[in-house]
Amino acid sequence: MIIIMKPNATKKQVTTVIDRVKDIGLDVQINQGEQQVVLGLLGDTRSVQDIAFRSYEGVDTTIRITNTYKLTSREFHPQNTVVDVEGMKIGDGNFITMAGPCSVEGLEQIRQTAQIAKMGGAQILRGGAFKPRTSPYAFQGLEEEGLKYLRQAADEFGMKVITEVMDETHIDLVAQYSDILQVGARNMQNFKLLTAVGKTGKPVGLKRGISGTINEWLNAAEYVAVSGKSPVIFIERGIRTFEDATRNTFDLSAVPLIKKLSHFPIIVDPSHGTGVWDLVPPMARAGVAAGADGMIVEIHPDPENAWSDGQQSLNEKNYRQMMKEIQVLSSAMKEISSPQELTVRRER
Amino acid sequence: MIIIMKPNATKKQVTTVIDRVKDIGLDVQINQGEQQVVLGLLGDTRSVQDIAFRSYEGVDTTIRITNTYKLTSREFHPQNTVVDVEGMKIGDGNFITMAGPCSVEGLEQIRQTAQIAKMGGAQILRGGAFKPRTSPYAFQGLEEEGLKYLRQAADEFGMKVITEVMDETHIDLVAQYSDILQVGARNMQNFKLLTAVGKTGKPVGLKRGISGTINEWLNAAEYVAVSGKSPVIFIERGIRTFEDATRNTFDLSAVPLIKKLSHFPIIVDPSHGTGVWDLVPPMARAGVAAGADGMIVEIHPDPENAWSDGQQSLNEKNYRQMMKEIQVLSSAMKEISSPQELTVRRER
Amino acid sequence: MIIIMKPNATKKQVTTVIDRVKDIGLDVQINQGEQQVVLGLLGDTRSVQDIAFRSYEGVDTTIRITNTYKLTSREFHPQNTVVDVEGMKIGDGNFITMAGPCSVEGLEQIRQTAQIAKMGGAQILRGGAFKPRTSPYAFQGLEEEGLKYLRQAADEFGMKVITEVMDETHIDLVAQYSDILQVGARNMQNFKLLTAVGKTGKPVGLKRGISGTINEWLNAAEYVAVSGKSPVIFIERGIRTFEDATRNTFDLSAVPLIKKLSHFPIIVDPSHGTGVWDLVPPMARAGVAAGADGMIVEIHPDPENAWSDGQQSLNEKNYRQMMKEIQVLSSAMKEISSPQELTVRRER
Amino acid sequence: MIIIMKPNATKKQVTTVIDRVKDIGLDVQINQGEQQVVLGLLGDTRSVQDIAFRSYEGVDTTIRITNTYKLTSREFHPQNTVVDVEGMKIGDGNFITMAGPCSVEGLEQIRQTAQIAKMGGAQILRGGAFKPRTSPYAFQGLEEEGLKYLRQAADEFGMKVITEVMDETHIDLVAQYSDILQVGARNMQNFKLLTAVGKTGKPVGLKRGISGTINEWLNAAEYVAVSGKSPVIFIERGIRTFEDATRNTFDLSAVPLIKKLSHFPIIVDPSHGTGVWDLVPPMARAGVAAGADGMIVEIHPDPENAWSDGQQSLNEKNYRQMMKEIQVLSSAMKEISSPQELTVRRER
Repeated sequence: MIIIMKPNATKKQVTTVIDRVKDIGLDVQINQGEQQVVLGLLGDTRSVQDIAFRSYEGVDTTIRITNTYKLTSREFHPQNTVVDVEGMKIGDGNFITMAGPCSVEGLEQIRQTAQIAKMGGAQILRGGAFKPRTSPYAFQGLEEEGLKYLRQAADEFGMKVITEVMDETHIDLVAQYSDILQVGARNMQNFKLLTAVGKTGKPVGLKRGISGTINEWLNAAEYVAVSGKSPVIFIERGIRTFEDATRNTFDLSAVPLIKKLSHFPIIVDPSHGTGVWDLVPPMARAGVAAGADGMIVEIHPDPENAWSDGQQSLNEKNYRQMMKEIQVLSSAMKEISSPQELTVRRER
Repeated sequence: MIIIMKPNATKKQVTTVIDRVKDIGLDVQINQGEQQVVLGLLGDTRSVQDIAFRSYEGVDTTIRITNTYKLTSREFHPQNTVVDVEGMKIGDGNFITMAGPCSVEGLEQIRQTAQIAKMGGAQILRGGAFKPRTSPYAFQGLEEEGLKYLRQAADEFGMKVITEVMDETHIDLVAQYSDILQVGARNMQNFKLLTAVGKTGKPVGLKRGISGTINEWLNAAEYVAVSGKSPVIFIERGIRTFEDATRNTFDLSAVPLIKKLSHFPIIVDPSHGTGVWDLVPPMARAGVAAGADGMIVEIHPDPENAWSDGQQSLNEKNYRQMMKEIQVLSSAMKEISSPQELTVRRER
Repeated sequence: MIIIMKPNATKKQVTTVIDRVKDIGLDVQINQGEQQVVLGLLGDTRSVQDIAFRSYEGVDTTIRITNTYKLTSREFHPQNTVVDVEGMKIGDGNFITMAGPCSVEGLEQIRQTAQIAKMGGAQILRGGAFKPRTSPYAFQGLEEEGLKYLRQAADEFGMKVITEVMDETHIDLVAQYSDILQVGARNMQNFKLLTAVGKTGKPVGLKRGISGTINEWLNAAEYVAVSGKSPVIFIERGIRTFEDATRNTFDLSAVPLIKKLSHFPIIVDPSHGTGVWDLVPPMARAGVAAGADGMIVEIHPDPENAWSDGQQSLNEKNYRQMMKEIQVLSSAMKEISSPQELTVRRER
Repeated sequence: MIIIMKPNATKKQVTTVIDRVKDIGLDVQINQGEQQVVLGLLGDTRSVQDIAFRSYEGVDTTIRITNTYKLTSREFHPQNTVVDVEGMKIGDGNFITMAGPCSVEGLEQIRQTAQIAKMGGAQILRGGAFKPRTSPYAFQGLEEEGLKYLRQAADEFGMKVITEVMDETHIDLVAQYSDILQVGARNMQNFKLLTAVGKTGKPVGLKRGISGTINEWLNAAEYVAVSGKSPVIFIERGIRTFEDATRNTFDLSAVPLIKKLSHFPIIVDPSHGTGVWDLVPPMARAGVAAGADGMIVEIHPDPENAWSDGQQSLNEKNYRQMMKEIQVLSSAMKEISSPQELTVRRER
């Protein structure tokens, strides 16, 4: 951490700050500039994050130069983490597809969707049983009944399951039916939930918050990682900006950025990222090209009659066409990026 | 709800939409424009919010023209709701102050702060016992011990208590010690928590989400209101924008806007709204002038040694000065805005 | 346009609005809903955009349902516009690369960069001679001298030129040396400049504003298009959001969205879109996969000594590697998307 | 400036950076931390802003610790600048009102508005003759004819004039009729225009850009200030965020923040800040309480028939009521904040 004093800070003010730093066992290096004093704190500065140096008299600002997400960082763990989902790998260089409806609406609907998903090439079935909805009067999900249908449909077609857990109290229930526990965008900073899912040992699909910064997202992953049990799969799903022509602004730069900063895999969600079904295929392709480890997309046998998110769900025909395109681009990506080259390119 | 068809929509596409609308028991009015057909849905359109008309062939877009937060809306309840906090009123025309530290750090710290708060004129003591923190390595609060100290300090100085409940599982615990249950910004859309606090009968202080729209905030209040037990106190605490000179962008327009749309009171939080202690007094004054029913501010006997948020906490001297200013402006506001005038002015 | 009256609007208020609509020669259709009256305006409603119906008594809100960018819209011109840059085509299905330094720093620097650009496969040389800089004390460009060097270097290596024109007074000067006139992000709504460049007949590279919505961008293009002379090339370069891990948030969804709404080509600028050199190649690849018609990237023979934007400029080695990847992905894209398919896929 | 090296930076990489720093005549202090080397640059570091240290091998990031807006900063000029507008003062402790229509529509309309403005207490008449409009088909202003009417109306009622200059080529024309030259939000970073208006000697009303940061705004003012002739009046008019319940998000915190960082006065524009007429009076009051030096508001004798911005314009009755409230709050503010106290309070 660096502490920058104001140009007019007094000697006493500087000394007060220095004494406080030494109090907590850190060493300090003093830079006497022409305009102001700058203090460099040496040692494990994670311990100082709770001290409000900015409120000290004479202090202009403070700058943190080490991150706080040690276990999640690539510095700590240089090799990619390959997540094992009951034998299926995420992050091993193959592009994985998770597909399914926004909401599980009934057994037949989810069976039909699972079949479509599988035939198109998806390995994992998605579907919401507990639905976070802006309005209390909107459909809130089939809950446990939905979980059962989802599992049954996935098993029938040899697929894995990902579904959202909204609440600490439902973790055991959801974990019973799901292979991956999804933490939704609205819960990215529900710290109790993060800590609790981290203890299950199940992989955690961690959606980026609607206004979550990359740094907050990495710290949220750290809440999961400190348990030492559950690996994280980052899911980029768009952020909230002024632009309203799309539901969210799909921040694809997060893909190479997370890969640079963390060892955990990252997948993309072009359905929520755009909110408009005909933008999903081009953005799914862009996700492949950006280097994502997979994607999660909303599909529905009959989007016009979907109980939720129909406008961003693909029907069978469009889904099949998209999956062909993804296949072509995935092959192209394998051609250009052997893991060695990726590593080499990062050096300049 | 209004459904706008594309200019090139076929007759069959229009008919399909109309049939679906009639299916769910609504009537429809058809506008044949020069360029496109526009359908007006008549009846209680809350029931159609789960139908994805935007995914229908030939549909361009849909527009909702009635809100979904009935119980929270001023249309439903034209008079202001005055919230009763164990005999103390919020929303009756007097400006209420809630003050205290970010975190309860110990009995002595909170007693000392309570004394300062009370002497300056605050009626309610704030203080965090469960702290949502970006990093898992940061101080997470004293939990139940903190709640006890907070209650004890408030009782000693004849104050009420507001404190945050982060998790459904802690509601009973927190309710035992607190007069108002605060739902934090990160939990504005933690729908399970909203539903659960709504059943306690305690007033709920509902912070606006970091990226919460006014509409989402009103709908979040509706989750509390549907229980029919707990009244809501809106707390504007700033939203996340591109501007980084302040911690958040303090959206004071929310004050008159919420007052126009809802009957529940609204207070302001200039500490989180700005994140910089010397911007707190001017923005607190602005809150009074905008018509807020009160404020919640962070104060600390020794901000430089606060365990969290020291940079935005006021010390005793600055707090006292601010409270004098608030007093002067509150009197000025009473001079200009009798309730009748407010009502009259809303007519044009 | 649709006008939604308030639930409590009086008959007289409704009549006043209707009379005003008829005054300006439009017809109106009246929907009497259960809660409120909704008026649909029929005819060419572009003429009503200057009437403040929202300020009428009893009016709740108004909704525009036709766009105001007629000449730019795909409805007006269903086929893609292929822009001709002195014989080179943009928008014909081939992916075009514009490369060069942020600033022209001297003849040798731009010659060296042109050679690198050309060898890597770029067809167009970019380089700033007039530089918009946040601070008045930063380097502002070599101005005419820079333009001369840029043209000379491009001619030597058989390339076309794109460079920014910041000011109406410099249009003739810049047009003398450049094949494409670039309007920078800060000038997206400099309407006088847009009108003036539209009259030159030179293709206009129109960068999206730092906070420009898709709708505003299309309307800005309309200012160029009304002249009937200059075609537009949209350039997505990222928008400003709360995220600060990247210089801007690169909004790649704009690519398929602009292609859906307009007939003009769109290229991407991953250098400004990310602001970090090692994120440029993955986002350039993503641009290809999203369907962009080309890209514009910053390269420099010696980024460490660049006079501006060095941190987002690629050196020769990284540029060459990126161009190989682009080549592979472009081929893959041609395999999957024949123009016919694109058209078909847009139907649902 | 501080340069933070990566944890794995080599000795050679560190030396390369140090040599470059010394090359440009600066001294450097080296901090050898446990994890990484941090370099502190000593001397006038404004000269290094064009060097891309971030692109150097082994460099993690760079941090600027001195601002680049010297002449605009309060450090340079500790006393408030009081702007003299043909004998009328802005920034002397009195709250100034500029009022008028969005657009000058004709002589009678502007005369009538001037009379209303004056009777209500405004000192300065506003009105647009050159109008920046999103669509090329919208009304663009009466241009010189409008300027004449504006001047005539202001003179008749003893008022000063503020109006927007959109283009360098119109500066002389506008300066002939206007006492203050307004630079609009879309032109905050039109650097040629800023430089040109700075040379006129007329006070410049500098609106904050739609997505302008405080830092960019201060730098934009510096473009005006370097001429040494024209003083600046900052105008906060709201920024673009995700919130769409208001036209912009009115960032009132900018008022005390600009007062802390700069010596120039700042006024507020609640009309554009909110975009909704009935939010204007409460936010105007909030502006007074936040410490603004004045405001600029849109009024119209007949908002329903205004040619532009009618929905945010006040009619005579509401304007008069607002001005009474402003009067009461201004008096209250004078009671609490003598200049000495303001200075004292800034010390902690």
